[in-house]
Amino acid sequence: MVGPFGGITAATLLRAVIDDPRRIGEPLSITVNYAGPIADGPFTIDAIPARTNRSTQHWTLTLTQHDAIATTATVVTGLRRPTWSDTEIAPPAAPPADEVPITPLPEYPAWMRNYEMRFVEGGEILSATPQPHTTSTTTLWVRDTPARPLDHTALTALSDVFFPRIMLRLGRFVAASTVSLTTYFHTDLSPTSDRPILATARAQHFGNGYFDQSAQLWSEDGKPLATSHQLVYFKD
Amino acid sequence: MVGPFGGITAATLLRAVIDDPRRIGEPLSITVNYAGPIADGPFTIDAIPARTNRSTQHWTLTLTQHDAIATTATVVTGLRRPTWSDTEIAPPAAPPADEVPITPLPEYPAWMRNYEMRFVEGGEILSATPQPHTTSTTTLWVRDTPARPLDHTALTALSDVFFPRIMLRLGRFVAASTVSLTTYFHTDLSPTSDRPILATARAQHFGNGYFDQSAQLWSEDGKPLATSHQLVYFKD
Repeated sequence: MVGPFGGITAATLLRAVIDDPRRIGEPLSITVNYAGPIADGPFTIDAIPARTNRSTQHWTLTLTQHDAIATTATVVTGLRRPTWSDTEIAPPAAPPADEVPITPLPEYPAWMRNYEMRFVEGGEILSATPQPHTTSTTTLWVRDTPARPLDHTALTALSDVFFPRIMLRLGRFVAASTVSLTTYFHTDLSPTSDRPILATARAQHFGNGYFDQSAQLWSEDGKPLATSHQLVYFKD
Repeated sequence: MVGPFGGITAATLLRAVIDDPRRIGEPLSITVNYAGPIADGPFTIDAIPARTNRSTQHWTLTLTQHDAIATTATVVTGLRRPTWSDTEIAPPAAPPADEVPITPLPEYPAWMRNYEMRFVEGGEILSATPQPHTTSTTTLWVRDTPARPLDHTALTALSDVFFPRIMLRLGRFVAASTVSLTTYFHTDLSPTSDRPILATARAQHFGNGYFDQSAQLWSEDGKPLATSHQLVYFKD
């Protein structure tokens, strides 16, 4: 609960794969396990292509700092090709991005100020007097600030852009940290724009110190960019 | 697409962690990456406790056969303790298990005959003349056959018990195989019964050779046992 924004850790691990000359294909999935805190300072990422097939490649990664493994991860890359397609889920109801005001963000945590957030639903924890909430759903338009075209590393970070669902439910600050995060990428993201994307997340079950979160990230024109899941530790 | 049932591979990897004397806590999550086929014959599982904290432990695993890595996995174990709890999702509508007839299962794939399945919805692919389906949702009561009390390894296998969603949508056999599977466990499973559990799964997006699946596994009395997600390759 004292590490940096989990999204940037995940994005940094994915970057190690993307930049590796041995890589084939585009990112299909990433799972990151947050094993211990990461401090300011140098760290080492080891990325191993554990198995390379004709059209997919399976990577295992560790992030090591001060001789301890702080993060483990797996990444699958692969070649996409045209097939039958269909999207069974729909984007959450939301006004157009430009009609939703930008939400003023707190000083802490610092990482939030790297994003422009326009909350459509479930942003009450950021208000002056948050109250308990009957559901854990948050929906927002969000993009990097300063704005830049979306790529898979930015999308990976955005899949962790939601404050812990337990805080929305209980209406107060709760110590919480992601244990494991998995994001599935649904598109090759080329070319992309710097326009906001629509992000929505909810918890499914809270209990015994953990909850799970399911998230969806949609392009402005309603295409699914990524679906994501995480297991989160909390101390109430 | 020529390997064994992915659920048994995942369960076997989890078993390696459960049986390891270095383990602390109960299973919280598992991610399995199906990197290559596994043939009948010996294989080696290496399980490494990459990081051990006070109440959680992060494992990395590989399954190797004929000097090639066939599967990689990560497992998180940890201690659960009482906290505030709530379940935001509800079990799918279904008659009681005993009121749903047991579905006769085909000779192939062989693994299905290790389960007693009672389809409530979306089992049409098993009929003599399957038709395309407008949604990918399947719901069934399911348990091992012969019946035995549920444990985390059995639950892990059950999280992969759904035939590929693409087959339900297209109403025909489609070559498909799981690329990556993640299951989050919501309970310590002690004691448990050998009664059927209610399992439901659906796809969110199909396209460019891949789809994702979200699944929920519920106890007979309506408690969430596990939530699960997978990314699946298909060739239409």
